[in-house]
Amino acid sequence: MTEPLAPGATIGILGGGQLGRMLSMAAARLGYRCHIYEPGPAPAADVAHALTTAPYEDLEALRRFAQGCDLITYEFENIPAEALDVLAETTPLFPDRRALEVSQDRLTEKTFLSGLGLATAPFAPIDGPGDLATALSVTGTPAILKTRRFGYDGKGQARVMAPEAAEAALASLEGAPAIAEGFVRFSKEISVIAARGRDGSVAAFDPGENVHVDGILSTTTVPAALPLKLRTDAVLIASRILNALDYVGVMGVELFVTPEGLVVNEIAPRVHNSGHWTQAGCAVDQFEQHVRAIAGWPLGNGARHANVVMENLIGADVARVGQLAAEPGVQVHLYGKAEARPGRKMGHINRVTGAA
Amino acid sequence: MTEPLAPGATIGILGGGQLGRMLSMAAARLGYRCHIYEPGPAPAADVAHALTTAPYEDLEALRRFAQGCDLITYEFENIPAEALDVLAETTPLFPDRRALEVSQDRLTEKTFLSGLGLATAPFAPIDGPGDLATALSVTGTPAILKTRRFGYDGKGQARVMAPEAAEAALASLEGAPAIAEGFVRFSKEISVIAARGRDGSVAAFDPGENVHVDGILSTTTVPAALPLKLRTDAVLIASRILNALDYVGVMGVELFVTPEGLVVNEIAPRVHNSGHWTQAGCAVDQFEQHVRAIAGWPLGNGARHANVVMENLIGADVARVGQLAAEPGVQVHLYGKAEARPGRKMGHINRVTGAA
Repeated sequence: MTEPLAPGATIGILGGGQLGRMLSMAAARLGYRCHIYEPGPAPAADVAHALTTAPYEDLEALRRFAQGCDLITYEFENIPAEALDVLAETTPLFPDRRALEVSQDRLTEKTFLSGLGLATAPFAPIDGPGDLATALSVTGTPAILKTRRFGYDGKGQARVMAPEAAEAALASLEGAPAIAEGFVRFSKEISVIAARGRDGSVAAFDPGENVHVDGILSTTTVPAALPLKLRTDAVLIASRILNALDYVGVMGVELFVTPEGLVVNEIAPRVHNSGHWTQAGCAVDQFEQHVRAIAGWPLGNGARHANVVMENLIGADVARVGQLAAEPGVQVHLYGKAEARPGRKMGHINRVTGAA
Repeated sequence: MTEPLAPGATIGILGGGQLGRMLSMAAARLGYRCHIYEPGPAPAADVAHALTTAPYEDLEALRRFAQGCDLITYEFENIPAEALDVLAETTPLFPDRRALEVSQDRLTEKTFLSGLGLATAPFAPIDGPGDLATALSVTGTPAILKTRRFGYDGKGQARVMAPEAAEAALASLEGAPAIAEGFVRFSKEISVIAARGRDGSVAAFDPGENVHVDGILSTTTVPAALPLKLRTDAVLIASRILNALDYVGVMGVELFVTPEGLVVNEIAPRVHNSGHWTQAGCAVDQFEQHVRAIAGWPLGNGARHANVVMENLIGADVARVGQLAAEPGVQVHLYGKAEARPGRKMGHINRVTGAA
């Protein structure tokens, strides 16, 4: 195994939101300094050593940023290819470009996953209205049309309940390249947060059970109510994905539980909202695990010593935080965002519901 | 209960070492920004919003610092009285001045504690060599001479094994006002980390069992091997101290376990090294608890969901951290200090040894 990144080294983080903020604190715990790169307001900067405020198109700013960093990671996957080219001139990026390419494009992602022999929703590409009939013959209806790129938290999506509604749904995506996905009849959604180190070792946290409201994650509960076989399957699926990508870092893998077994919904090449419970349930949380992985430390083993319910505080929910904090076993994480807009993730709580 | 300090507010922290660093991260988790005031190198600044580098004698710098803070707290208790006067002109300080006065001076502290009816080591003031005979007649020998002020981690102390060695021991303290303390025959040292909120509510964590090496804390283990009655006593003693001081914040209370019951060793009006285990064992750790207390949040209840051994990494110990990180259940906390000098606290690990 290679030596870990030396203490005092600087880790660059692309994106200054809550994930960058929590990554920055985890990196500090391992003795590193963080430099945040963020075009907009950057709550992460309050707990980081340095901040660059510049767009991803400012290649000079990117170059200076990269030169000051010993390695670079990111909190979101929609980084323009040209920015990646500039960063790569001087500084290693983890997870690497291949992981970004696969996860930035829903068609590439689904093709990659099914190429590994993993079950996904039926899918088909849609480059224009002329592809709709063929695509829906693959997926059936109801289906969901999704932009291939830049979607998150339910944005860039339109449901098609019947074929005659497909054109209007596609129009709502405003001409962006898209895919159609068939509906998966699932009893619940789970996710696995898994990590792969620079030495190829893999460690996974227990699967969490996710509940979404209005397309946004609302709660994650561990342990998930799940037969042991499916827990094992979930971890094996995540490992297969990580190994196939020669991945370094933490990945979030969302899975549907169906009568036929697990179906992969999507992957995120970064720490993931559904892994926030690890802050209260594990000795090594997903943020420390990510920093360990990219900086060449041994991975934590993922063991869980507490049962936890993570609850997101979305928009006005944050007004309840004082009341929630008064309940036993509630750990608070606010993101330092100024304005509680509807749909905006303002913070989360981890409620420890017992020893594991 | 008063409203908590508003999100986005600034908390000033006097002292920029590891305690300030972990306090700053906890404050960020509750949505606050931190401003560190530190005369020397400040590892806390890497995870804080702002840093003032100035001595405690620079009253103008203190004034500007205080004006930019909504409230002020501290990571160490040896703050000059004149600095406190300046801060108090504009900004509330928690824990307050009374807590500092009591804990800054070993004679005041011991007098206060015994005034509460709590058992302490026998003690007597020593203002000069002429007081030695009387003092040792109170304490017996062996005894320990300690400077009244500015001692920590075994510094400013000298043992007196027999009366004829007393003058030399006192001389080693270089004329500082001192006290003599009698030896306490104890089977172990424990500590209680307790908090009191602005509303007067009190919450304590489980007592931890401490092992010192060369006068510096080496490990804290929870649960402490301790009869239930003594656990309860420990928490009651801590509560009595907090209430008597009308205290706001987290306090560390060190206790000796003796055949006659618990004897109070010393108190620290701040988060405490022996409370670091709470980072891995509790939903709300001592750092979040301190910020909750001073910022007017409801206190966490102190419940523990894991068994933990905290191990300090002193000086060259830090070289072992990669190896330690590979062991199951080990959480790493490095302090971002550049140089691993002997006796210097470089970091700690929390080893989760099982669910509670």
